[in-house]
Amino acid sequence: MTKSTTRNLTSRGRATRDRIVETAARVIMARGVAGTTIQDVMAEAGVSTSQVYHYFSDKSELVAAVIEFHAGLGDPGAPADLDSVEKLETWCRNAIRTQVERDFIGGCELGSLASELAETSEGVRMQLVQAFASWEAPLRRGLRAMHARGELREGTDPDDLALALLAALQGGILLTQTRRDIAPLRAVLTTVMARVRDSVVAPTL
Amino acid sequence: MTKSTTRNLTSRGRATRDRIVETAARVIMARGVAGTTIQDVMAEAGVSTSQVYHYFSDKSELVAAVIEFHAGLGDPGAPADLDSVEKLETWCRNAIRTQVERDFIGGCELGSLASELAETSEGVRMQLVQAFASWEAPLRRGLRAMHARGELREGTDPDDLALALLAALQGGILLTQTRRDIAPLRAVLTTVMARVRDSVVAPTL
Repeated sequence: MTKSTTRNLTSRGRATRDRIVETAARVIMARGVAGTTIQDVMAEAGVSTSQVYHYFSDKSELVAAVIEFHAGLGDPGAPADLDSVEKLETWCRNAIRTQVERDFIGGCELGSLASELAETSEGVRMQLVQAFASWEAPLRRGLRAMHARGELREGTDPDDLALALLAALQGGILLTQTRRDIAPLRAVLTTVMARVRDSVVAPTL
Repeated sequence: MTKSTTRNLTSRGRATRDRIVETAARVIMARGVAGTTIQDVMAEAGVSTSQVYHYFSDKSELVAAVIEFHAGLGDPGAPADLDSVEKLETWCRNAIRTQVERDFIGGCELGSLASELAETSEGVRMQLVQAFASWEAPLRRGLRAMHARGELREGTDPDDLALALLAALQGGILLTQTRRDIAPLRAVLTTVMARVRDSVVAPTL
């Protein structure tokens, strides 16, 4: 838990806290958690020591707020419902376009944090699990809706497909980041979506 | 390039250098590159300052040797040939078993390094690309052999499937590590392999 939850803040306090967290998210994305100091964040956000320590007791609280921030965003590329092959393919195309627009730099905000922090403490790990779950939720909701409408073949587990898509996104982005090349992300999303397509029952005409 | 290539070493020098690199790989796996000092490695390997600096000018050279070490191992779970669906499925089962045996702790040696180091320098990034390529090679070789024998449907790109499998492995391990649960790795490898199965031409009987 962070020192001050956003609940108890004035709108001005909340804006300052948000600025600190968003700045920290940006700096951490560029340098990693280990490479980021509270001083770096203060300098980038243009806030004083007393302001930062008003909201966060220490760096670990600030990092926790950054994970919460990414979890709260959910998957920024996810539309409200992903309950058709076409909508899921659009989600994949958005993920691909985002990496192309970033010149393949930086990787996935959440994946990079998870890789760096998964082994640091049980509390941080649980936060990362929650954050991934919030990204997985729209995929799962969409595939479950398709399943409930009888659109997926018998034996198809919509939760497994949702998890496979999230894992494909993570691994694809990591290889795409490393290679500076969209091929890995495109190949793995194409392959998983081809399987989703194969799982759809052909309609009676 | 490291200060002394292994070529110019006596067998005893080579053994010492190998011990330093293997120890560094283990310590980095547990604490990350940023969390590991040359002193940590010296203490763990039981070697002196002068010994370490005889082989490596600085930490970045030692890290480079660790990446080379993982690349040289290739994918430790890969048998010589992966040129059938059954052999590829065995490769997947080995990857799953490895994570179960490790209690899902630590993630992928190479994936964790890539996530931490991909943005540090162009030289390190290229080393990581090579290391991933050495893991991808047996998958690609196996699927290309199947393709050359006419076992894959027309339009199937064996290189795309190999890349998809490597990306699935990476993303699956990251989520499995974070969740301490085999479900993500199993779901994504099952999904990609189902697609590989679908790509195989049924034999004429």
